[in-house]
Amino acid sequence: MEEPGFTDLAQARVAVVGLGLMGGSLALALRGRCQALWGVDSNPTVQAYACQHAVIDDATDLAGALEAEVLVLAAPPRAILAQLAELAGWPAPPGRPLVLDLGSTKSEIAAAMRQLPQAYAPIGGHPMCGKEVSGLAQAEAGLFQDKVFVLTPLERTPAWALSRALDLIAAIGARPLELTPERHDQLAAAASHLPYLAATLLVRAAEGLGDDQIWQMAASGFRDTSRLAASDVTMMTDILLTNREAIRGALERYQAELGALLALLDGADAEALSAFLAAAAERRRGLFQP
Amino acid sequence: MEEPGFTDLAQARVAVVGLGLMGGSLALALRGRCQALWGVDSNPTVQAYACQHAVIDDATDLAGALEAEVLVLAAPPRAILAQLAELAGWPAPPGRPLVLDLGSTKSEIAAAMRQLPQAYAPIGGHPMCGKEVSGLAQAEAGLFQDKVFVLTPLERTPAWALSRALDLIAAIGARPLELTPERHDQLAAAASHLPYLAATLLVRAAEGLGDDQIWQMAASGFRDTSRLAASDVTMMTDILLTNREAIRGALERYQAELGALLALLDGADAEALSAFLAAAAERRRGLFQP
Repeated sequence: MEEPGFTDLAQARVAVVGLGLMGGSLALALRGRCQALWGVDSNPTVQAYACQHAVIDDATDLAGALEAEVLVLAAPPRAILAQLAELAGWPAPPGRPLVLDLGSTKSEIAAAMRQLPQAYAPIGGHPMCGKEVSGLAQAEAGLFQDKVFVLTPLERTPAWALSRALDLIAAIGARPLELTPERHDQLAAAASHLPYLAATLLVRAAEGLGDDQIWQMAASGFRDTSRLAASDVTMMTDILLTNREAIRGALERYQAELGALLALLDGADAEALSAFLAAAAERRRGLFQP
Repeated sequence: MEEPGFTDLAQARVAVVGLGLMGGSLALALRGRCQALWGVDSNPTVQAYACQHAVIDDATDLAGALEAEVLVLAAPPRAILAQLAELAGWPAPPGRPLVLDLGSTKSEIAAAMRQLPQAYAPIGGHPMCGKEVSGLAQAEAGLFQDKVFVLTPLERTPAWALSRALDLIAAIGARPLELTPERHDQLAAAASHLPYLAATLLVRAAEGLGDDQIWQMAASGFRDTSRLAASDVTMMTDILLTNREAIRGALERYQAELGALLALLDGADAEALSAFLAAAAERRRGLFQP
């Protein structure tokens, strides 16, 4: 019979690997809800800051983190992939740790999780609460409150591990949503990665006009539509490179809509143009009710 | 010698034609700063509401508005064009009214203003303070506060008319920016119309995925990037049709950036991709400091 794993988050030691906006916020949100909080960061200054500001109880390294009952991988996606590859090459850990990652893309991470020794209980996760700012100094305990937290269980994820991941999500006030890694990546490409890219293209196209007066003309509409363009570039590069296929699909749908719009503009048919715009307006008005 | 026109906004009667978000807000912002405020709207219910809520002192029609010293055309661009055509066909007004429009596009309106009889003193205007909501109920006196208010004087605009338009801009707390109509339209296409279209394409591309779960995945990033898609469709159709050439140019620059991004994604060169993203991130971080 299989090891049942741990049964109570309040009794568990949690190690957070990557103390940026997400990992730092998770540590803050878990304070007092688990037995101990350990933190790992490749930047020693960040680790020291996390200890000094009581974000974590202790600093450790990836090997040391394997003593914990819960291992949360909270670095950018390609760093998570590297860490999973490391774990796969190491001897089995002493206990049977739950391994939860917070990466914004899931299919490649799921594939890497499948390579872990059976002593690990892995499950993918993605809290839908990005910000255009990054780093531990921006972390806040309330970041996950009422936000969707996607879980992508693998075939090999044991039932107890899913339950504990749900406990963790409840402890930080988020709302769980279970998806396959592949469906997550399709949805995230359209709902999260495409908005970032649309904002980036907007800033580049405005710059491309070559008239510096444009920044004085940019009002609240430009401000909000372009906000995500200021996101962390390392993180976004990792996301693009680990979700290329789905993002390419989203960009191609976007490109097709752009082509249709250009044709309507050439046609100058007010009614057809209005119908094209109205479909999006009606959909958008039905979302995000205050 | 030419009629000098009126000299003091506080002594002038102002007629606002089109009592939507912009016209209504302008009337509210001018309360107590001019001698009388008249309002014209094609919808009698809106006119009645404006009187009942003391947004204006009296309702009138376009012909009646010609008694005023200041005529503000605040309807969508194509309605402004129709009103200017009407005025051009009528007998000269009794005084020498300043005609200021608030349309979001300026070249076509400038061309129509050039057809007005010499008894009018026309000047183009565009306050850069859109909202994704519309209508008189959304109007607010503070809408223009600290916002850029573009003025596009014509060759025929007399100096006194420019001075009075600057007085009006100062009275509502906005910041004037003088541009030619053509330069305004280029800048507005990239800074204002393109963000709206990027938001619209984003909502349509998300819808095009054909998976309703997407709306649950859409978090604050999607919310802000898509906000403008909910804008008033009549207004936006008018804007697209009266600024087609500049908007086509902006969309084509956007399309070229999209093509470059797709090529970088195919190449999977992390460094080149990062550089593409970082240029926009750096520019965006330098804008809109809190």
